[in-house]
Amino acid sequence: MKAAIIGGGVIGGGWAARFLLNGWDVTVFDPDPEAERKIGEVLANARRALPALYDRALPSEGTLRFTDDMADAVKGADWVQESVPERLDIKHKVLAELDRHAPAEAIIASSTSGFKPSELTEKGARCIVAHPFNPVYLLPLIELVGDADTCGAAQAVLREVGFYPLHVRKEIDAHIADRFLEAVWREALWLVTDGIATTEEIDEAIRMGFGLRWAQMGLFETYRVAGGEAGMKHFMAQFGPCLTFPWTKLMDVPEFTDELVDLIAGQSDAQSGHMSIRELERLRDDNLVGIMRALKHSGSGAGGVISAHEAKLAQAGMPVTLDRRIPQGWTDYNGHMNETHYLEAGSKATDRFMEMVGADAAYIAGGLSYFTVENHVRYLAEAHAGDRLKAETRLLDGEGKKLHLFHTLTRGDGTEVATVETFLLHVDLNTRKTCLPSEAVQTALKEVAEAQAGQPVPEGAGKVGR
Amino acid sequence: MKAAIIGGGVIGGGWAARFLLNGWDVTVFDPDPEAERKIGEVLANARRALPALYDRALPSEGTLRFTDDMADAVKGADWVQESVPERLDIKHKVLAELDRHAPAEAIIASSTSGFKPSELTEKGARCIVAHPFNPVYLLPLIELVGDADTCGAAQAVLREVGFYPLHVRKEIDAHIADRFLEAVWREALWLVTDGIATTEEIDEAIRMGFGLRWAQMGLFETYRVAGGEAGMKHFMAQFGPCLTFPWTKLMDVPEFTDELVDLIAGQSDAQSGHMSIRELERLRDDNLVGIMRALKHSGSGAGGVISAHEAKLAQAGMPVTLDRRIPQGWTDYNGHMNETHYLEAGSKATDRFMEMVGADAAYIAGGLSYFTVENHVRYLAEAHAGDRLKAETRLLDGEGKKLHLFHTLTRGDGTEVATVETFLLHVDLNTRKTCLPSEAVQTALKEVAEAQAGQPVPEGAGKVGR
Repeated sequence: MKAAIIGGGVIGGGWAARFLLNGWDVTVFDPDPEAERKIGEVLANARRALPALYDRALPSEGTLRFTDDMADAVKGADWVQESVPERLDIKHKVLAELDRHAPAEAIIASSTSGFKPSELTEKGARCIVAHPFNPVYLLPLIELVGDADTCGAAQAVLREVGFYPLHVRKEIDAHIADRFLEAVWREALWLVTDGIATTEEIDEAIRMGFGLRWAQMGLFETYRVAGGEAGMKHFMAQFGPCLTFPWTKLMDVPEFTDELVDLIAGQSDAQSGHMSIRELERLRDDNLVGIMRALKHSGSGAGGVISAHEAKLAQAGMPVTLDRRIPQGWTDYNGHMNETHYLEAGSKATDRFMEMVGADAAYIAGGLSYFTVENHVRYLAEAHAGDRLKAETRLLDGEGKKLHLFHTLTRGDGTEVATVETFLLHVDLNTRKTCLPSEAVQTALKEVAEAQAGQPVPEGAGKVGR
Repeated sequence: MKAAIIGGGVIGGGWAARFLLNGWDVTVFDPDPEAERKIGEVLANARRALPALYDRALPSEGTLRFTDDMADAVKGADWVQESVPERLDIKHKVLAELDRHAPAEAIIASSTSGFKPSELTEKGARCIVAHPFNPVYLLPLIELVGDADTCGAAQAVLREVGFYPLHVRKEIDAHIADRFLEAVWREALWLVTDGIATTEEIDEAIRMGFGLRWAQMGLFETYRVAGGEAGMKHFMAQFGPCLTFPWTKLMDVPEFTDELVDLIAGQSDAQSGHMSIRELERLRDDNLVGIMRALKHSGSGAGGVISAHEAKLAQAGMPVTLDRRIPQGWTDYNGHMNETHYLEAGSKATDRFMEMVGADAAYIAGGLSYFTVENHVRYLAEAHAGDRLKAETRLLDGEGKKLHLFHTLTRGDGTEVATVETFLLHVDLNTRKTCLPSEAVQTALKEVAEAQAGQPVPEGAGKVGR
């Protein structure tokens, strides 16, 4: 399959990357002498991020070609994407030329956020709107507006490259999503203008609260859950009167009629009525936990808040190296904790053990650490989401560069659920070669060894295959 | 520490859960005879979700007590949270009584979304606004409005129970976040009223696009990234004129002056200027990938789109059981793939092997599966985010109930990075006991064994401790 990208830049580059990484050949037309560099930068970001979404390999990349001849660019194209500047006269000129040169069966689409299909096609050129969201190589949403048959064909193509094409049933200025963005933008400008909040405070007010809800459920399903068992009508009745309150400066307000309530309640039932409020609440909570746990890795927004709070939570002392609950995201299709996360628990126990003997974050920042060379996990009993999980750790060998640990994992009822035996070597993080730990760490390891001296070798240590 | 919760319901219950699960004692006052049941339901959700955010145990739960005497409820309280219905006359009455009976040093806060502190305190009762977001036990944001000293003290307390308290510097109707929610709600009602989109389409337009951005960066930082190296001023210049366009029906618009542009560009520099646009782009992308991968577990929104697309991606045939890229979220403080995810890769290879011999999703849905009883991972070389990772699988034993696999993991350059030796037993998912696989699976396993017959036992199989 072949795509022609008319106009590079961040949006055109994002389209090019999405097609290329899904195995399409891509030709770019852009008179900007910087186009190749700019698209190269978007592509570098995309190569880093898009494949990471999937647990399978994407197809082999297609070929990327630049041309300064528009007719050449669209030759043999299955999809032509126009992302030139947002001026109607420019769009008309480009679309006329694309229509003339593109294959009759090619789909010609515009990335416009500001113009309606009726405006783009008023000079006779065929075209639909396919409005993407930045970063185009990652975000699923494409708003499709225009001729229904063409939009239908376009949906099938866009799904093949991983998009979520949303057919907007009636054309309107700014389509759907940008209308919300514009409303929030206008309100935000008021808040800054009036000195109520800074840009940073506004961003925090979004990403620490409703932004986390909207990433998974959007507006109406969130409110359906908030309305509780009493349902969407109850929620509407409660918040309807607010439409006349000065809760935003944006005051052209729809009339709050019974018909509107019925329309929304009915649509909400069709959308979410197959799940009870309790089920929706749990889905929402599992998603929130998953999203916030994901943000812990970078420390952004809610992830940073959780890590800061977690650092203040008490930790049990040796030999207890782990004490936590099992999150929903650790379970699998067998209805229990997945094998991987027993090792994750063991790995966290190793981290905590290292910290307790002085091989902590500061030590690692100083260029020394331990690398795991071998792990042996024995699964003894099932564990489930919500179970408390503890680890106790035996030091089997801490001489020289070696660290040999044996973690015993138990769940809240005291049942032993697994053992994780782990062999590590001390390394210099600059050379990536083994070396001796610091004197302080060696001393701390000796103290642990002495404290544990005389305890028998744990059952299951050193053996594979029962 | 002790909290008094005045008014149960979803919001009061959320506050109660947040305090309780952080080790506080909680007393609830609510005349509703259903209060105990309602709070019990919120608490059940909270117990399921909140501890799952953390990789450490939360403190032991505090005690929960119900009372029908408001003076008794606030006795000895450090924090008093009012969440009664949104009517100013009721709030005045309740706040007067709370002020009278609560300890002098207690913080008295209202959950109100609609009233300003000046309105709540106009009859003389002390009170600040501490406005939470549903679900209160999970979402970090609390908007604090009112007396600066009290808000300062309140921030410290709220951080102790994991909240992100945002001090709103000037009181305003609906505080900050709800103004955005109200603007979007009004615009959404127009879209439904005018037949442009259904509630479901609106939710998709949010959660498949900008909702994913807002969960991590909010509004202004997202636009700063969109503006690229040219910066926030460039972005403003591009989108300023849109304020006069009919892009929303909400048309009370701030004047777009140079002063406003400078104010916003300056605030944005102070907020995000410590990172280059390239760094912000990569942070954004890593967070988007993390959030969308988290949503794959439930299949909600973007997670469902990715899984559907992934199912269409080609898979290599036996003996290749895994072919993928390493996501950023799999790396750790040593700057390489964390030990846990070598096993995750092995686990996915096992899943794929099972699928290829007929122990697939339908087979598992039919009540039969394999449980892992032992894993042995040897780490041979480092692997990094973005590396291609492949697994080839040897079947060492597939007789009877046993399944003994040996995965060899290689990275893109052909280097062997790990071996994962795994022992599984076939089980009946209803009894959770071992049993023989189906005839079809037994036959498929025999065929694989025959195809691989004569190959030597892999190096490293069956041994622990090098």
